[in-house]
Amino acid sequence: MSERTLHFGADYYPEYWPRERWEVDARLMRDAGMDIVRVGEFAWRVFEPEEGAYDFELFDAAIEVLGRYGIRVMLCTPTAAIPVWVQQRYPDVNVLDVSGRRRSWGARKNWCYSNPTMRRLSRSITDAMAQHYAGHPNVVAWQTDNEFSYSGCVCDHCAAAFRRWLATRYESPEALNRAWGLRFWSMDIHDFDEMMPPLERAHSPAHLLDYRRFQSDQVMAFNREQVETIKAADCAAKVTHNFMTTYSGIDYRELARDLDFVANDMYPRDITRLEDCAYGHDVIRGYNGGPGFWMNELQCGYINRENQLRTPPPGMIRLWTHQAISQGADAIIYFRWRSCTGGCEQFHSGVVQHDGDPVSRSYREIVAIGEEVQRLRSEGVAGSSIENSVAILRSFDVARAMELYYGGRLFDYDAELQRYYRPILRQNVGVDVVHPEDDLSRYRVVFAPLLMLTTPDQIEGLRRYVAEGGVLVTSYRLGAYDLHAVVPTETLPGDSLVELFGVRIHEYDCLMTDAPADPTPLVAWDGETYGTCVWADMLEPTTAEVLARYTNEWYAPFAAVTRNRVGAGQAIYVGAGLDEAFYAHLVPWIVAEAGVSPFLETPEGVVAKVRLVEGQPLCFLLNMTTQEQVVPLPREMHDVLRGCATPPELILSPRDVAVLR
Amino acid sequence: MSERTLHFGADYYPEYWPRERWEVDARLMRDAGMDIVRVGEFAWRVFEPEEGAYDFELFDAAIEVLGRYGIRVMLCTPTAAIPVWVQQRYPDVNVLDVSGRRRSWGARKNWCYSNPTMRRLSRSITDAMAQHYAGHPNVVAWQTDNEFSYSGCVCDHCAAAFRRWLATRYESPEALNRAWGLRFWSMDIHDFDEMMPPLERAHSPAHLLDYRRFQSDQVMAFNREQVETIKAADCAAKVTHNFMTTYSGIDYRELARDLDFVANDMYPRDITRLEDCAYGHDVIRGYNGGPGFWMNELQCGYINRENQLRTPPPGMIRLWTHQAISQGADAIIYFRWRSCTGGCEQFHSGVVQHDGDPVSRSYREIVAIGEEVQRLRSEGVAGSSIENSVAILRSFDVARAMELYYGGRLFDYDAELQRYYRPILRQNVGVDVVHPEDDLSRYRVVFAPLLMLTTPDQIEGLRRYVAEGGVLVTSYRLGAYDLHAVVPTETLPGDSLVELFGVRIHEYDCLMTDAPADPTPLVAWDGETYGTCVWADMLEPTTAEVLARYTNEWYAPFAAVTRNRVGAGQAIYVGAGLDEAFYAHLVPWIVAEAGVSPFLETPEGVVAKVRLVEGQPLCFLLNMTTQEQVVPLPREMHDVLRGCATPPELILSPRDVAVLR
Amino acid sequence: MSERTLHFGADYYPEYWPRERWEVDARLMRDAGMDIVRVGEFAWRVFEPEEGAYDFELFDAAIEVLGRYGIRVMLCTPTAAIPVWVQQRYPDVNVLDVSGRRRSWGARKNWCYSNPTMRRLSRSITDAMAQHYAGHPNVVAWQTDNEFSYSGCVCDHCAAAFRRWLATRYESPEALNRAWGLRFWSMDIHDFDEMMPPLERAHSPAHLLDYRRFQSDQVMAFNREQVETIKAADCAAKVTHNFMTTYSGIDYRELARDLDFVANDMYPRDITRLEDCAYGHDVIRGYNGGPGFWMNELQCGYINRENQLRTPPPGMIRLWTHQAISQGADAIIYFRWRSCTGGCEQFHSGVVQHDGDPVSRSYREIVAIGEEVQRLRSEGVAGSSIENSVAILRSFDVARAMELYYGGRLFDYDAELQRYYRPILRQNVGVDVVHPEDDLSRYRVVFAPLLMLTTPDQIEGLRRYVAEGGVLVTSYRLGAYDLHAVVPTETLPGDSLVELFGVRIHEYDCLMTDAPADPTPLVAWDGETYGTCVWADMLEPTTAEVLARYTNEWYAPFAAVTRNRVGAGQAIYVGAGLDEAFYAHLVPWIVAEAGVSPFLETPEGVVAKVRLVEGQPLCFLLNMTTQEQVVPLPREMHDVLRGCATPPELILSPRDVAVLR
Repeated sequence: MSERTLHFGADYYPEYWPRERWEVDARLMRDAGMDIVRVGEFAWRVFEPEEGAYDFELFDAAIEVLGRYGIRVMLCTPTAAIPVWVQQRYPDVNVLDVSGRRRSWGARKNWCYSNPTMRRLSRSITDAMAQHYAGHPNVVAWQTDNEFSYSGCVCDHCAAAFRRWLATRYESPEALNRAWGLRFWSMDIHDFDEMMPPLERAHSPAHLLDYRRFQSDQVMAFNREQVETIKAADCAAKVTHNFMTTYSGIDYRELARDLDFVANDMYPRDITRLEDCAYGHDVIRGYNGGPGFWMNELQCGYINRENQLRTPPPGMIRLWTHQAISQGADAIIYFRWRSCTGGCEQFHSGVVQHDGDPVSRSYREIVAIGEEVQRLRSEGVAGSSIENSVAILRSFDVARAMELYYGGRLFDYDAELQRYYRPILRQNVGVDVVHPEDDLSRYRVVFAPLLMLTTPDQIEGLRRYVAEGGVLVTSYRLGAYDLHAVVPTETLPGDSLVELFGVRIHEYDCLMTDAPADPTPLVAWDGETYGTCVWADMLEPTTAEVLARYTNEWYAPFAAVTRNRVGAGQAIYVGAGLDEAFYAHLVPWIVAEAGVSPFLETPEGVVAKVRLVEGQPLCFLLNMTTQEQVVPLPREMHDVLRGCATPPELILSPRDVAVLR
Repeated sequence: MSERTLHFGADYYPEYWPRERWEVDARLMRDAGMDIVRVGEFAWRVFEPEEGAYDFELFDAAIEVLGRYGIRVMLCTPTAAIPVWVQQRYPDVNVLDVSGRRRSWGARKNWCYSNPTMRRLSRSITDAMAQHYAGHPNVVAWQTDNEFSYSGCVCDHCAAAFRRWLATRYESPEALNRAWGLRFWSMDIHDFDEMMPPLERAHSPAHLLDYRRFQSDQVMAFNREQVETIKAADCAAKVTHNFMTTYSGIDYRELARDLDFVANDMYPRDITRLEDCAYGHDVIRGYNGGPGFWMNELQCGYINRENQLRTPPPGMIRLWTHQAISQGADAIIYFRWRSCTGGCEQFHSGVVQHDGDPVSRSYREIVAIGEEVQRLRSEGVAGSSIENSVAILRSFDVARAMELYYGGRLFDYDAELQRYYRPILRQNVGVDVVHPEDDLSRYRVVFAPLLMLTTPDQIEGLRRYVAEGGVLVTSYRLGAYDLHAVVPTETLPGDSLVELFGVRIHEYDCLMTDAPADPTPLVAWDGETYGTCVWADMLEPTTAEVLARYTNEWYAPFAAVTRNRVGAGQAIYVGAGLDEAFYAHLVPWIVAEAGVSPFLETPEGVVAKVRLVEGQPLCFLLNMTTQEQVVPLPREMHDVLRGCATPPELILSPRDVAVLR
Repeated sequence: MSERTLHFGADYYPEYWPRERWEVDARLMRDAGMDIVRVGEFAWRVFEPEEGAYDFELFDAAIEVLGRYGIRVMLCTPTAAIPVWVQQRYPDVNVLDVSGRRRSWGARKNWCYSNPTMRRLSRSITDAMAQHYAGHPNVVAWQTDNEFSYSGCVCDHCAAAFRRWLATRYESPEALNRAWGLRFWSMDIHDFDEMMPPLERAHSPAHLLDYRRFQSDQVMAFNREQVETIKAADCAAKVTHNFMTTYSGIDYRELARDLDFVANDMYPRDITRLEDCAYGHDVIRGYNGGPGFWMNELQCGYINRENQLRTPPPGMIRLWTHQAISQGADAIIYFRWRSCTGGCEQFHSGVVQHDGDPVSRSYREIVAIGEEVQRLRSEGVAGSSIENSVAILRSFDVARAMELYYGGRLFDYDAELQRYYRPILRQNVGVDVVHPEDDLSRYRVVFAPLLMLTTPDQIEGLRRYVAEGGVLVTSYRLGAYDLHAVVPTETLPGDSLVELFGVRIHEYDCLMTDAPADPTPLVAWDGETYGTCVWADMLEPTTAEVLARYTNEWYAPFAAVTRNRVGAGQAIYVGAGLDEAFYAHLVPWIVAEAGVSPFLETPEGVVAKVRLVEGQPLCFLLNMTTQEQVVPLPREMHDVLRGCATPPELILSPRDVAVLR
């Protein structure tokens, strides 16, 4: 990432294919406008066939061939999948899972981040690679490992490290007992040595949560060792890691701090739900602190994961590609160049299929996309900025805590955030995904639903934001947890939040459904009645005005949506999960009230996204529908992809994309 | 329980809260009319911070504070949850489960009842507590441990104890082989030492059943040691244990024998199904041998168990409370005084919420209930009797065997009993839940459905009951198992039952559905046709008259419901599970034929329950509906709760309760 | 099986019942026309009460009693269920499963086929039995063990044997790496000693598949030892094993080679689906290489397996019996003579129930069937042939591979084959189930759907078949796997198959549904439109003509069904799973085009099946419906069961059977 350019490429496994094929591949890549491949993340046994014996010949040769065709590489440390010699010499590197089973060889991510042998082996191979490739002109960037995740390990190394971790974070065992609320069920400890990993199903939420934090920190340490080793060999090296979008097993916000930039992998759960993809890109741009993230793996054809089996129809890869760029991606790398014939993922399609034939639809579509990418390059998309005045607040701590919340499978944090996200997106209002600790002052509206776990500092930040004129919107269960997933003893949502939102909550109901269904509370607002789902807080205004009320059964006396004016701003509390129609009504009203207007009015299903190139808007229009759409334009613009001026009414074919300047 | 009074209180965890709060709590309890709290069941580490070092200071102080406000305590042995020092010093106390996994610290009920160390530790802490609190004026009663359950342990201690248990119950290995039918699949043993716990899924039902019996006996022995230890220190101590209503993992009938009285915990599966609660109270009164049982844990707000998440609406706690008293409870103890902020059950609501604020709806409702309890106290409810002439026969052995019945998940014993229970309840006919060995002579009608497992003694008891004039009603699968879950070689339902019911069964069909659905046999009775479910026995009358017949397919020739007159009584056989409408028709007809009339006619959804105070009926009217109901009264009565005479037509608001004398 | 006769009998457990009952049973069997019982398969502890101490007295006595009533025996080796002395002396015979748990005593098939101790014990007991019963006039045949299955064992014995197995099949570790495609994820090995059983969920399909093959070979070796031991003692002994129809855990085709004839067990999943039973019989006749297989276990009443609980209605056992004979069974042995009172299968009904009373419906029905079997015996059914000109090609390798195909739970091989089978059956066209390696030249049409895994030899066989005039029909995913479940690098379906079918495939879609549902591709053929399911290949004809096209969305340009004329024959490719109506239209058209005509036209639900007795057709007419059916006959025939001439229109009662000559 030395220079700023829009990268375009694929993940490549030269070790899997005959050497005589490399040149063919490189030529086809070049013909598709590609300038980069990611390599090496599963090639440990190639790099180090036996412990301590390194061999870079294969990749040296491959990089040389690729280079001749203008293709440079992102190089990965290969630690995700251990070679069998690691397993056989050091079987204890494997995860010991909570059922008492020691995992084994044959999968990836089956080893323990706390294991000292694994750490040593990781440093060695990283160091050998970094030394060998330091300053190599064709190595553009590095990726550490692959898709770090929560290992679930409870081995003795983990248990000991967990005790040390606790001892550094809690003054004393008594402080830990207090913080976690361990007295119930006689769970209190008198010495840190008494603490164990959570081996039973029924542990305290605080115990489970801190164990997740600890394990996340082990991953951070593992990653940091690799990053530092790479940079020690080559201080100019740019290092990233490929995220899994909204995954909450490890702390991506923390991880992003140790990286030069963030990369993401995207295999849409449901290939037809482009709004979910949009949400994912905004989440990742948030982790990256702005545009410039990379798509290190972008689906480019049929894959066969459980429940993810439909083939992307024509035009979908193009839509995915432009959507990612429009929301801040500066590199598009498809997974993968060519389908492997064997292995677990043998049916994960490549740009070319198993037969390597460029006649494949993905290759043909990608050649055309490559030409468009070239036009975007010329427009200076790479490094351009995105400026929004609306934000969704997504707290990583809430995401993690919601996964552990017993009896709360209904609490799907991202689903709740997306209830607010979708109407914003449909309005063509740009939105950032921010964290409670971020500077909120540049936003006119911040949506912060389901902010169940908060800290005094975060609350103070929110208060200041509102006092200074911001509009803050929250939803049910606000403030119900402190940092340790322990419930405060102040009346909900806690004194300072009571003051901020002007409501108090003594009653709530879990609605046990994620879509409105009888019998649930009903909410009336602005002449309409809406069904509720998931959860209902019964709001008792102290200083807030009531925007909407519950209208039935015992819920009737209570407020459902309230607004509190604090200083120059407003704090809005939406007490329940509601049906889609409610948000379609409420969210645009709030956004408009805050003086934010859409960039462009488009027909339903056409989304406009803007990147600012040297201050000038470059507008991406994405037709997410399978019908032709007509977009009236306010003025004549330059159609970048078609290279001509726009007509007054732009016609977008099904799944078509336009980029206007 | 020295004196007879209607107790009212909550479960309290003084160890969880600051000392300075105790006095506030005690005052609020007193203000709500409370006179008792249950304490200590999870406080092992408080009582015994390290092995052998006892410390009663905290509870002494708490009991003193509570006492000053007139609150006395039920004291619990704290063995349900082991402190971490037990785990770390004696890791083998943990259950070894059937998957070969040794359970660990962090949950409750994770230890083995057969473990000699655990037994020793249990006796020691019980003895220390009993010695310390013997004769304490504020200790009203004791609870052993908490919610005993089947551990599923298969450790070596269990295996050895199981072999000894078998050797004392079976004359020889050959006798065991015969009794269990072990010859099939070469499972026969030649020596008791060859027998093992059932470690595979496919064991003989007899093996599984006796292992359950053995493990239940281990629990009995564990409990007995605690009871005897308490009584050795204080012969006047009253000891109970908190049951889980219809739980069949351990033999509650056996357990009740070792206790001074029975206590129950109730968290309704579905808060709207009050008929299920009614059934549970009658089951528990049966275990207790009559009224006078305690509710040691009664839900008083939102809890967050899987699928049990709805908040009880206003009036529901009051209904639950009066319903329990009307069916024989002499103590109402809510779980719990205050929601704990941490721990697994952090969202199990208390009378006051996490904030401790008495403004909570539960506290306000309970204050009002407390006043009503005071009026009931004055009426002398505690110690009053209940006399019914209809019984449901519920065999614990059947309940246990049904859980093991392979391929028989459809056989839900309590669901089948409730098919008969509901129409009795709706008629306002009082019903006892009895056991096959109980004296049945006082009942005019005994419903004994799904009596699949029986013994010759039980059958003789039933025969005598009918011969002497009783009406006995049974249903499908009668007599299909002997005591060892082995099928008799006599034609079903076995010779003596053939004689009693006057039917023989050669054919049956499992209907694989718990609600009528095509294609199932149809049954015609009294001009109507009914659908069947669960199971259909094809009845061939020998001496019985046919009441109803199957009408379709190959079922058509057979009788579905028969009646046999034996001596002065009748034996009725209902061959199938049928739809709700059938029982609504059949059961009142049987009850009326037997000369039993309802205490009072009430509108649908209003239930009348009677306790006899010195022979005089005290009638509880419970409006289980959410509509206002009008109950015409046959004569003027005294309205105990309102303290006035009744009008000719009593008006009950939604979920209202009246108590009439 | 020394002489050819139609055997009729039951599985019998004399060891379970008192000796005094044997004579009663033998008489009842004789009265039902029985001539055979299968005995001994679970009687290891009777035969060998302690290691090395053999005792044949019980079975000698039982065989003697049975013999007096004309009942002879099929004798089984008893290794399926180990006695407890094996468990206690040699606990390592138990399977070590993939979760790391060592299985235990108490079930059957809980031991490892690779275990040398188990092998030794198996040889010893087999040898002892074979020596003792060699030449016994009442021993008709032998069955090895019972229902061999995939053990899933991963113990050290298995691991070592697996490595040896690999070393004999692959020239070198490098050859293995190449064949399995192990380079992806660094899974390649440098030494066979590095290879392990697949212990993780995510292994390469090739690894999983070869482990299945290896374990199947272990079963083969185990069986072969027993067969050879029996034959060493008695060279005239006929040995079989009881298959589980379409089970794919072990290679039945291979197993059949080591047996004198094949036997099958049948408990229909859904007792109403007689077409599934028909399919099963044809599969088994295929394994047997023609008629003459035995039904060693045929359900004869209520059983209580999960989801298999309905009681067979009157007439069903008779239908099952004649259906089996009509499709090639030469022995009908019901499971079982009498329901055992204890054990896991205590509710698996016998011919007589637990009470042993011959009044049971099954006994009465079977007495009547016995008389009919006697008539069939006189007709010379045993040893008669079946000649068909249509075949379904069922590759065992595909069946096995489909079970491992990740993300492919939708790919139910037998379900796909049955899409073609049912319309053939309904047409009264006889069909054989054949294997790719069989001689196909005698068939006019071969249906070979979902032939995903193929080998060059198989493809050459298919090509020759078509070239010589055959009609070959295949469906989606043709050729997508080589022998190692590795995807070829030729364009699908691979060069030689492209030539054969005249189509090429670059695009496909997994439809994620096994019944047509929106949005799926639609297919138009012959004026009708059909929905698709499971999978859709987009066919691009090279030399083939298009029979049907996709008509919607992006699927529209592609062909859905094609026909290629090659030499004298045709190769038809059906690109998708389609709805039932499509096959009801297509299959008869193909069959008629190929010049095959139905044996007889019958009303829907009446199936005609033909066995050739000395060249003359003996026609079974099975009324599978619950209505009376009228079958017009082309000419007067002899009604074998009724013993009279047929009328012009034969009337079949519900579930009736007729056998015409």
